Amino acid sequence: MSRKPNDDLVRRLKSIEGHVRGVQRMVDEGEYCIHVVNQISAIQSALKKVSAIMLDGHLRSCVTEAVRSADAETREEVLGELMQVFESSTQV
Amino acid sequence: MSRKPNDDLVRRLKSIEGHVRGVQRMVDEGEYCIHVVNQISAIQSALKKVSAIMLDGHLRSCVTEAVRSADAETREEVLGELMQVFESSTQV
Amino acid sequence: MSRKPNDDLVRRLKSIEGHVRGVQRMVDEGEYCIHVVNQISAIQSALKKVSAIMLDGHLRSCVTEAVRSADAETREEVLGELMQVFESSTQV
Amino acid sequence: MSRKPNDDLVRRLKSIEGHVRGVQRMVDEGEYCIHVVNQISAIQSALKKVSAIMLDGHLRSCVTEAVRSADAETREEVLGELMQVFESSTQV
Repeated sequence: MSRKPNDDLVRRLKSIEGHVRGVQRMVDEGEYCIHVVNQISAIQSALKKVSAIMLDGHLRSCVTEAVRSADAETREEVLGELMQVFESSTQV
Repeated sequence: MSRKPNDDLVRRLKSIEGHVRGVQRMVDEGEYCIHVVNQISAIQSALKKVSAIMLDGHLRSCVTEAVRSADAETREEVLGELMQVFESSTQV
Repeated sequence: MSRKPNDDLVRRLKSIEGHVRGVQRMVDEGEYCIHVVNQISAIQSALKKVSAIMLDGHLRSCVTEAVRSADAETREEVLGELMQVFESSTQV
Repeated sequence: MSRKPNDDLVRRLKSIEGHVRGVQRMVDEGEYCIHVVNQISAIQSALKKVSAIMLDGHLRSCVTEAVRSADAETREEVLGELMQVFESSTQV
């Protein structure tokens, strides 16, 4: 997946971009803090969804290829990267 | 703070908006998944910082006023909102 | 709240302790990884709930007192602590 | 890894169990809320580390086997489980 354009992801990211602009406007117009913070949470959830879609594609393409390949070094590298993503996430 | 424009926050949000556009380009050009996911993590951190700044201002203005006010209902509402923000966050 | 024993919290923590012991047993008996990881997530949620209850009490006691007090330094310290808790949490 | 006892993990979980008992004592003795909340954060980090170790073993055993196997259904199931763990974590 990581090697070809992905319309769904780009569409999601465009919508996130618009959402961020909306939050700028809210801040600029002095909207109530808690409303702004809630909109930021919504943006974070939308970004998390994009990461999840990316990772799903990654598991099914690069990780699958690397795990099947005979090259232990590549395999190690790809699994190591995946663990770093896990560890930099929160609860896992 | 929530009642007046805030240049620093708007500047941070504009930078986040640019960062989201950069991620769109990365996806569009078929960049390696893990690099995209790492950029999304960086955006998440930047958004978290904006929320933290908003909440800091909120504590020092609205929450402080509400807690000092004689009106128990307003106080309850403001503290309840704050707890909801805490609870919807992850680790707290 | 922080100054007196709290039965509900102790009960929750005892249940969490039992849950952690259950996970030890699962690991010891070679249970399937994903099941173990899911139980750890459940413990994380239970711990988060304990923190939320603690913070709710904290807002209504120490923070309320500090904000009402005339002493700016105490006020600053208590609000600063609260922000640190926010910032060390994930999404906020 | 998921099929044999794992001393390091059990040791970590025993230490977490002791830590949870320590927090019970803190709550029982009316320790300052913020100190308790900080100890709970430390426990959450320790649990996250246990999950990360479990997942690392899982990637190198079950996931690797499943991905190499000819059975598409098993493969799909194992990758689906992995994605669920990702998605239930916070930042992905």
